[in-house]
Order: sequence, then C-alpha cells, then structure tokens
Amino acid sequence: MINFNAPSDYPLIGKQLVQVNRVINQRINTRYPELQDALRTMASHGGKYIRPTIVLLMARIIDPSLKNERLIKVAASIEILHMASLIHDDVIDDSPKRRGAVSIQSRFGKDIAVYSGDLLFTVFFDLLTETAADRASFQRNAHAMRHVLNGELGQMAERFDIHQGLTNYLRNVNGKTATLFWLAAGEGARLAGATNRQIFCARSFGRNIGISFQMLDDLLDYSSGDSLNKPVMEDLSTGVYSLPLLLALQHADAAKKLKPLLAKKRQLTADDMVTIQQIVKASGALQEAEQLATKFTNKALQRLHELPAGPTRKLIHELTISMLHRNK
Amino acid sequence: MINFNAPSDYPLIGKQLVQVNRVINQRINTRYPELQDALRTMASHGGKYIRPTIVLLMARIIDPSLKNERLIKVAASIEILHMASLIHDDVIDDSPKRRGAVSIQSRFGKDIAVYSGDLLFTVFFDLLTETAADRASFQRNAHAMRHVLNGELGQMAERFDIHQGLTNYLRNVNGKTATLFWLAAGEGARLAGATNRQIFCARSFGRNIGISFQMLDDLLDYSSGDSLNKPVMEDLSTGVYSLPLLLALQHADAAKKLKPLLAKKRQLTADDMVTIQQIVKASGALQEAEQLATKFTNKALQRLHELPAGPTRKLIHELTISMLHRNK
Repeated sequence: MINFNAPSDYPLIGKQLVQVNRVINQRINTRYPELQDALRTMASHGGKYIRPTIVLLMARIIDPSLKNERLIKVAASIEILHMASLIHDDVIDDSPKRRGAVSIQSRFGKDIAVYSGDLLFTVFFDLLTETAADRASFQRNAHAMRHVLNGELGQMAERFDIHQGLTNYLRNVNGKTATLFWLAAGEGARLAGATNRQIFCARSFGRNIGISFQMLDDLLDYSSGDSLNKPVMEDLSTGVYSLPLLLALQHADAAKKLKPLLAKKRQLTADDMVTIQQIVKASGALQEAEQLATKFTNKALQRLHELPAGPTRKLIHELTISMLHRNK
Repeated sequence: MINFNAPSDYPLIGKQLVQVNRVINQRINTRYPELQDALRTMASHGGKYIRPTIVLLMARIIDPSLKNERLIKVAASIEILHMASLIHDDVIDDSPKRRGAVSIQSRFGKDIAVYSGDLLFTVFFDLLTETAADRASFQRNAHAMRHVLNGELGQMAERFDIHQGLTNYLRNVNGKTATLFWLAAGEGARLAGATNRQIFCARSFGRNIGISFQMLDDLLDYSSGDSLNKPVMEDLSTGVYSLPLLLALQHADAAKKLKPLLAKKRQLTADDMVTIQQIVKASGALQEAEQLATKFTNKALQRLHELPAGPTRKLIHELTISMLHRNK
C-alpha cells in the first residue's frame, strides 16, 4: 500500500511513483464528476502500484540516473490497464469492495462500471500513442492486452473442468496475471537502454514473479484462517479451480473425496466448501503449491542476478522475497 | 443486411465487404470454441456493415481502382470496434437479442460478454498496429474510441435530467454514434490518397450522417406502431431521454404534462410510458426531429458533393437518402 503523501517512505522510486499517480489522475478525465472522483480515488488509495514499481525499478537497475516523462507515462499506462481489468473483474464477480473502497460497480452500477473500464482502456491507448517509440512497441502492448484477456477467457472456458491439470492453469495465469508483470519489466528495462539480453532477463523476471504472485494469492485464499474466505468460495461456486485444488486433485485419495463434492457444481453448500478446504489442506497441496511458487520465484531471482548489481537490484531482490512471505 | 454469400447483390464493394468479413472472422480467435463461434456468427449475420461500407466507398470515391489489404483491415477494425461496443451495450441493457440472434451476454452470461467486448477491443488494437501509418493515425483512432465512450458516459451522466436540452444530446450522439462514421469516412478517404480538404469533407459527411442516423433511430423508436417498443421503454425507465422527448419538453404545454410523469423516474408504469408517447406525438416533436435529422443529412450531402463525381458518389448519395426512409 503506497502513501502518496509520504513518497520518501518508499525507497529509491517514491517520488517517481508520486508522478505516476499524478499522471493517472490527470488522465482520468470524464464529463461525469462523480465517476471521475471515484476513479481517481481508486487510483490513489489502496493500490500497491506493483506494476509501475516494476517499470521504474527495472529502468533504474539499467540506468540509475534515468528520469524522463516517457518512463512515468509508461508506468502509468500499465497501471491504468490493470485498473481497467480490475473494474471489469468486479463487474463479473459482483464485488462490493475493491482496494478497501466501494467498487465502481457497486457504487455506480454495472453499466457505468463496464464503460469505466472501457474508458480506462482508451486512456491506456492514448498514453501509448504518446510513448510508443515504434510499431513494435504498439504490438507488444497490444499482444499483452490480448494475453491478459485470453487468460481470463481461458479460465472461464475451463470452469468446472476437474481434468484440466496444471498446464491450463499455468497458461491462464501466465496470461491474466504474469503478462502485465512481463510487460512492465520489459518496457522499463527497454526505456533505460537495456541490451536485448537484459530485456530478456527483465521480462523473464517479470513473468516468473507474476506467476508466483498469482500462485501465492491462490494459496493464501485456501490457507488463511479456518474458514474459507469469500474469493475462494466464489471461485468454487463458479467453477474456477485454482492451484491448491488442482494439486489436491492429483492425489488419488483426495480426488476420490473431492470429485463427488465438485460434481455438485453451482449447488455446493457452505459446508461442502469447508469440507473441500479441509481435504485440500490434508492432501499436502498447500505445501506443494508453495514449493511450486518458490520455484518460479527462484527462477525470477536467477534472471534478476543477470542484471547489473547495485542498490536497485538489492531492493528488487528484497521486494521479491517479501512477496513470498506476505499475508493477505 | 448483407448476404456474404451473394456479394454481387451489393453494388461496387460487395467483394471487398466479403473480404472484410473474412478478416473479422480470422481475427476472432480465442481458446473458447463456443464463444468464438458466437462472435463469428455475430460478425457474419445481421450486421449491416455500415461503417466498413463507408470506409470502402469513401476510399473508392477518391480512387476507384484502390484495392489493398490495408483498406480491408481498416474497414474490419472499425466494425470490430463497433461490435465491441454493441456487446458492452447489451451487458448494460440486459438485451436478450442482438442482430436477430441471441446476444453474447444472454447466451454466455455477462461475465463472458464483458471479456468478449474487451477481447474485441484488443483485436481492434492489433489491427491498428498493423495498419496505422504513423503516430497521428493511432491518435485519431485512440481519440475516436475515447469519444465513443465519453458519449456513452455523457448519456448516462444526464439520465433523468429533464433540463438537459439539445446541446447535451448532440454532444453525446456526436460521441457515441457519429464518431465511428467520422472515423470510417476519414480513414477511407485518407487511405485512397485524398487531399486534406477531401479528408475534411469525408469526415464531415461521416459525422453528419452519423448524427442523422442516430436521430432517425430515436425517432423510429417513438413513431413505430401504437405501442412503444422495448428499446424506448428501457430508455425511459433508465432515464435516457432521446431526441423526440427532449423536443417535446421544449413545448410548454407538452412539458407541463410530461414533467409529473417523468418525475416518477424508475417507477414509470407501462401505461405511463404509453401516455408519454402520446404526448410526444401530439406535441409535433416527431416532425421536428425529422426536420432536424434532414438538416444533418443535407449537410452531409453538401459535403459529399465536394468530393469527385461518379458512380461511387451517386451510390453514396442514394444510400444516404434511403437511410432517411428506412423503417425499423
């Protein structure tokens, strides 16, 4: 959580993050004062700005003296793309809350929320027309946006499919979550004048922490507390099977108990879901999920250590490790 | 309504429209076979392809021999942008039907529909990265996309506002409908090597027929049959006041009768709505709306006649006139 009033709390790039936040606020511009306020509130409160942070730190690791407007705008554009997908996700999940505040859809209704997300896509698009150096740069961004959506759609296509295995899960997570980390890291490094090999390492770092980030998110949903939290209950009842459940299904004994429950699909009761959580926990799937996430984190760190040493790399390393130990 | 199996039914540009349809089908590509089929069905059935038609005819009026892949892709990209906004509109309206077929949202649910629209935005974006000649070209498209959404959002911001007058209506229609006509006409002319003055005339033609197109749509909603049709009832109950109602509100006597009814807002009954329709009809607002639409059509035709004479211009003229006499 970033406090934009105390940028110095945030090491190395605090002031730049304040500038990113300012660009986002300036660009959120619509003839609908209430909505504009709500979007600006969303942009300034509760967001962790992980993606802009990656852009800025990856630029800094290559060129610690780099400070330019384009870098700030690129960082802002990726956060805006992320915000757009959050808003549309909330429409789909009927989420009452987002970033600690009331979600756009629960405050304004789904109609405004759909258009607000669309509006942010256009802001993203606008920023891109200002910052893209060449056609290839547009293409990377266009492909990233498509991969995010194909990940979301893939996840939906495989709902209630107990045979989907890890390949599909990884493909979808790679799209819906890791793509923006990949984009953020690669664009940051590129803007700072990185070599092709450095850009490759930055992107690979981004993709791998993106995947471990999502895996840990899925893991925390299952492990926190004795009762299932709301996101995982929603996922179960809408047939979105995340990593711990998919791993548990690979154990014959757990699968045998899980299958009749999952066969109820949308008719799962709250008790059923608690039973599912217990079976998943007892199967050892949570430890396996953590091991898998650690594998991706380690891969990311390996790539990171091909990039220039210094205080920025040290900070990125620390942030990556602390991500592994976060609690929800 | 275009029959892609009989391209020769469509004068001058029938074969090119078939190519546009083919590009759209190729680009609708997702790991979700059912959704892909539904989107391809939407792309091939029932659509009037008005925007691609404008692109192709405006290119042809400048250079009748022009046939290139970029032109087809640009025409496809604008239709895809239009399809994306139709899908999101259906989410908002909970529309069961679209283009004669079941709408994406009623067949797959709003979750898939939101992402499908987003996916089409990315296809639009992809096509643009392939066709845009320069940064200015991206900017025109980005601005167009934003204007469409600001029109939609503006319309929502002014819901239930009986004092909004015609200025707001025109601004919103200019955004939500006329922008894509403006874009289609301008890009078509530009691709065919038009002069700046010709591009200006093409765009002005597009914007003006876009506005008259929307006005006639609003008018037909009120005038068709003795009972109000579904779209206008939805508009009334959600507070979207279209041209005939806004014009009727400018007549003191009609306004006096309308205001207490409109004050009921979302509580309007079916009988109330029929009464509103009768008041609007009796006020002469339908004739006024038609006159206003004709003004915009005439302005469009005036601009058209600054462009090179020939069979293409004649055809555009005829299509424009027939639009004025269409029935829903």
